[in-house]
Amino acid sequence: MSKALERREKLRESLILAAERAIRAKGLVGLKTRELAREIGCANGAVYNLVEDMDELILRVGSRTLARLDASLTEAESKAPASPRETLIRIALAYCDFAAENFELWRALFEHRMAPGKPMPEWAVDEQTDLFRHIHRPLATLFPKRTAVELSEMGRSMFSAVHGMVTLGLEQKLIEVPIGALRKEIATIVKAMVNGLALEAR
Amino acid sequence: MSKALERREKLRESLILAAERAIRAKGLVGLKTRELAREIGCANGAVYNLVEDMDELILRVGSRTLARLDASLTEAESKAPASPRETLIRIALAYCDFAAENFELWRALFEHRMAPGKPMPEWAVDEQTDLFRHIHRPLATLFPKRTAVELSEMGRSMFSAVHGMVTLGLEQKLIEVPIGALRKEIATIVKAMVNGLALEAR
Repeated sequence: MSKALERREKLRESLILAAERAIRAKGLVGLKTRELAREIGCANGAVYNLVEDMDELILRVGSRTLARLDASLTEAESKAPASPRETLIRIALAYCDFAAENFELWRALFEHRMAPGKPMPEWAVDEQTDLFRHIHRPLATLFPKRTAVELSEMGRSMFSAVHGMVTLGLEQKLIEVPIGALRKEIATIVKAMVNGLALEAR
Repeated sequence: MSKALERREKLRESLILAAERAIRAKGLVGLKTRELAREIGCANGAVYNLVEDMDELILRVGSRTLARLDASLTEAESKAPASPRETLIRIALAYCDFAAENFELWRALFEHRMAPGKPMPEWAVDEQTDLFRHIHRPLATLFPKRTAVELSEMGRSMFSAVHGMVTLGLEQKLIEVPIGALRKEIATIVKAMVNGLALEAR
């Protein structure tokens, strides 16, 4: 790599880290090109030599968030062997904990909208889709007769349901729940969903 | 009512309806005091003689949305007698349909945040809480031994789970689902949750 390219790469990393700090502290609304440029010591316009646009910058931060979420879920799975049902509960709880501990960064994953008419780049879609393997694996063991399409539909439903509980629980908007109670409710519902789906499958 | 008060009341209603149209068309970001004032034919500042602030205006629109949602859920319940489990599925599907047909107004209910440090007024909290009776009733029939607190916890969990499926399904963000498939998945999951919770209760 040439010196110039190396420098650009370093500056780009600093930019992504600065954006991550800004989102962590203030959410997506806290992201201002001018402040980021000042923080990494470049001109405002130069930011767009480092990333294509704000969408790309936000997706790069999201990529880091997803990688850490992935690590958290993997860690939850690796703790002492468990039944697939127990694994699904652990993953759901690890998701809840991750969201609570990384609230603004996690929220940004779902709040961010691409500029109108611009599709999400394939690498970002792939990174998101890839995380579903954590749910897919235990479900495939629990429901060996289901097709891959049925399993991914089931995984999507279960994820969305848990995501809804985490979202409304943590945002304490319509529904105010302390985290301990929320974790208990999530475990109850995931268990009920799995047991209910298993009844259906008989 | 004096003529002046009557006039104020009419203008206030026009303001709320204009805000509703703006949110329906463009979401919460589409709400601009200046445009609303022009639409109802008053000075910008006069808007704040009609409502306390933007929060109140948005909550008044939300109040109308909740009343229509309430009517939709009531209608879903009143169609041909059904088992409590069937009723819960119908309510969940009616919620999904309402969200799809009133997407921006429905989204505004959850996106709106009060100005920092300002609590939501009691009347608005009560209106939201009141809607849970639709879920509470069939759950009380299904689980007669549960306490009111346990039932409302269960209702909250089930609502959040369905809300998550509707949100991610309709926003087609991480998860892209056609509405027919989404309705089928919601029915499956609600049935599984109820059956799973019933297993637990034995």
